[in-house]
Amino acid sequence: MTPGYRALIHASEYDRVPVALSNAENLFNELGEEAVEIRMVAYADGVLGFCADGPNTASMDRLADRGVQFVVCANSLRSRNLVKENFPDYVGTVPAGIAELVIRQAEGWSYVRP
Amino acid sequence: MTPGYRALIHASEYDRVPVALSNAENLFNELGEEAVEIRMVAYADGVLGFCADGPNTASMDRLADRGVQFVVCANSLRSRNLVKENFPDYVGTVPAGIAELVIRQAEGWSYVRP
Amino acid sequence: MTPGYRALIHASEYDRVPVALSNAENLFNELGEEAVEIRMVAYADGVLGFCADGPNTASMDRLADRGVQFVVCANSLRSRNLVKENFPDYVGTVPAGIAELVIRQAEGWSYVRP
Repeated sequence: MTPGYRALIHASEYDRVPVALSNAENLFNELGEEAVEIRMVAYADGVLGFCADGPNTASMDRLADRGVQFVVCANSLRSRNLVKENFPDYVGTVPAGIAELVIRQAEGWSYVRP
Repeated sequence: MTPGYRALIHASEYDRVPVALSNAENLFNELGEEAVEIRMVAYADGVLGFCADGPNTASMDRLADRGVQFVVCANSLRSRNLVKENFPDYVGTVPAGIAELVIRQAEGWSYVRP
Repeated sequence: MTPGYRALIHASEYDRVPVALSNAENLFNELGEEAVEIRMVAYADGVLGFCADGPNTASMDRLADRGVQFVVCANSLRSRNLVKENFPDYVGTVPAGIAELVIRQAEGWSYVRP
């Protein structure tokens, strides 16, 4: 029986993305992959930290393999001339990162902003 | 029938205020003004970003017209020698921004810190 | 009868620790010590702000006297070559700060990230 924790980790700034990724790793290590669902939501300059040609892909790949969900904000992509193809395949898009964060908290997800 | 989302957007740093304002705009655009209540809470140097003589008033004016609530922390004003008159008319004050954030989350509001 | 507010204040960056401490003070001043439980959770470089030889100990001492709980992330200590003895006696450790933040929110605690 799992406690069913659900965690939103908010990547809002480029410089905080490494801490956000480390958070996801530590959360899985502490609770176990079966006990917590992790969704990383990037918007604003946070999306730059998830780019396929950036410094964080090795860490992202490992976390995606363990089940972490990655999503980026379509509004933030548009204003930075980025497209879905700039990100690893497992990174999804949501129309508005802010809506994702608000709606999921209303559904009971915990929220952490590294 | 509205889903009744309620969102606290926390303006804690001066440099993050533009992202906070953009969040409010994107949230309204995505969910519609009738579906979400937005309250922007500024404290610490975040209050500087709401000043009437600052760079963000055009964006704030538009959001206030669409129904966004703006409040600043009275403790933060006092320690910066600011008064209510330094802000646009639609900006309210709360005795303690931190209390506002804690109490409203206990009432079910979602919280985002840009 | 107390409302039983419970507040997590997240110290994630060294530079934000003074604001986090000021938040705790303002929250107690506004609601009263009997009405709110405050738990300050430091991880990443936030833990540096709680060190016994740092600039924040006078403020921390006062808050600990008033009942604020202080905890630091053991993962963050390990990666910075810090041990429990680098912190004031009243500072506790948790195995993973991120897990603390996720689990307590699931239990109804409010979350603020200064």
